[in-house]
Amino acid sequence: MVFYIIGLGLGDHLDITVKGLEAVKTCKQIYLESYTSILGINRLKLQEFYGKEVIEADRECCETGIDEILQNVSIDLQNNYAFLVVGDPFCATTHTDLFLRAVKLGIKVEVIHNASIINAIGCTGLQVYRFGETVSVPFFTEKWKPYSFYPKIKANLDHNLHTLVLLDIKVKEISEENLARGKKIYEAPKFMSTQIAVQQIIESDKQLGLNSIDEKTKCFGVARVGFETQKIVSGFLHEFLDIDMGPPLHSFVICAKELHPIEEEMFQFYRNNQQKID
Amino acid sequence: MVFYIIGLGLGDHLDITVKGLEAVKTCKQIYLESYTSILGINRLKLQEFYGKEVIEADRECCETGIDEILQNVSIDLQNNYAFLVVGDPFCATTHTDLFLRAVKLGIKVEVIHNASIINAIGCTGLQVYRFGETVSVPFFTEKWKPYSFYPKIKANLDHNLHTLVLLDIKVKEISEENLARGKKIYEAPKFMSTQIAVQQIIESDKQLGLNSIDEKTKCFGVARVGFETQKIVSGFLHEFLDIDMGPPLHSFVICAKELHPIEEEMFQFYRNNQQKID
Repeated sequence: MVFYIIGLGLGDHLDITVKGLEAVKTCKQIYLESYTSILGINRLKLQEFYGKEVIEADRECCETGIDEILQNVSIDLQNNYAFLVVGDPFCATTHTDLFLRAVKLGIKVEVIHNASIINAIGCTGLQVYRFGETVSVPFFTEKWKPYSFYPKIKANLDHNLHTLVLLDIKVKEISEENLARGKKIYEAPKFMSTQIAVQQIIESDKQLGLNSIDEKTKCFGVARVGFETQKIVSGFLHEFLDIDMGPPLHSFVICAKELHPIEEEMFQFYRNNQQKID
Repeated sequence: MVFYIIGLGLGDHLDITVKGLEAVKTCKQIYLESYTSILGINRLKLQEFYGKEVIEADRECCETGIDEILQNVSIDLQNNYAFLVVGDPFCATTHTDLFLRAVKLGIKVEVIHNASIINAIGCTGLQVYRFGETVSVPFFTEKWKPYSFYPKIKANLDHNLHTLVLLDIKVKEISEENLARGKKIYEAPKFMSTQIAVQQIIESDKQLGLNSIDEKTKCFGVARVGFETQKIVSGFLHEFLDIDMGPPLHSFVICAKELHPIEEEMFQFYRNNQQKID
């Protein structure tokens, strides 16, 4: 019948839309994508809230097991199915791929949108229209320091645009050692903090010799956007080396060189109000 | 108590989140912002759904009357209030301004996020991270043809980024003639179609002599995103001069010069499937 791909939004189980919840309640099977990030979402809490079983679809499932699920959906002419995604369904390539696989099998797909960090970053007061390309900062290692994200930040600064910086998440990773030994032992999840991100950003600027950022670069750190414990802090780049944003998930914004008056006012507001803002 | 600023999402009354709905139900007064765009939302339908009165807050109210509302909220220590916004609360400067005015009065503000076109444009299959600055195309008149949006499209193309093009909306406008006569007669609402937008984009490129676009420029037209009648069409720029996307609201995307494999696949999919996709 219908294969729903439903965005859960950014906070907890109550951030699903009413339309999404109604759809879920018609479904025979419900999968929760747990590959990209499910921090605020507890599978058991969802089960309780929906009154239905929720099956975790992890990285492995998303990359390989999904075809079997879709095959079963495509031959079931009686029932609906749901695939739940934190944030908005199309904010990860994996889910676009899922959409394509489903429609190719002749499955009727309906997408139910929700908030994602891409638009919720407006909570900083920066105009969402003035953001340039989004960048992702990966964890640097001793041997692997990919500075390739950095020229995008420079390009945005050169065009007087803000940059949303997404920070690396490592979920269900297997260490090289265990991989070599064929042992499927998952490492503990790892979430990059704004402090690490800022260190790496400053290092990248120096190593590439671009001098695009300095002590006057205005920034926002955001943590747990959409959660009750949401935290928004504004400040100058180097200050963030010492600002602890608390538990994950963190994101970061490097502001355009010129702020519009309301943006500037919001910058001052979050600089002077560094307590929790619900 | 709490002044909620709640995003209603992109479709109808069922696109509010469960959290948003619960908040609305605790409120003494509920305002619906009707200045930017309330196409899918019917105030009476909302009233029926909430079982509460919903007061329309139009352009005038948002710009001038809002202070009175906030004054009343700030002295009421017993009740919650809600301000409903189509899409996400922070996707218009007006609402950031509202947030600031409220917090300055010492009001406790809570924001409940939702989908907006800024992230839901991912429905095209284009990666949301690869969008550059968003541009807005205003209606050209005989005397007023502001081409200033166009260089932003060129800059995005030069950086191999997609451009989300938002199309002009004229709601509750008073004609120059009536304004001069002091007559408060509103013109009928006017929504730009993708056809007009493409005409103006091509004109701007020619007039500025930039030659950034041609017959091979890939584009997406989207209409009524998040509605049941949602339509997504892909094609080459000039083809859109003849494509009727149906009733408003329309948006448009000019793709980066190079598409990633999954983006290309989605482009082909919507080119070959130009019927309604729910």
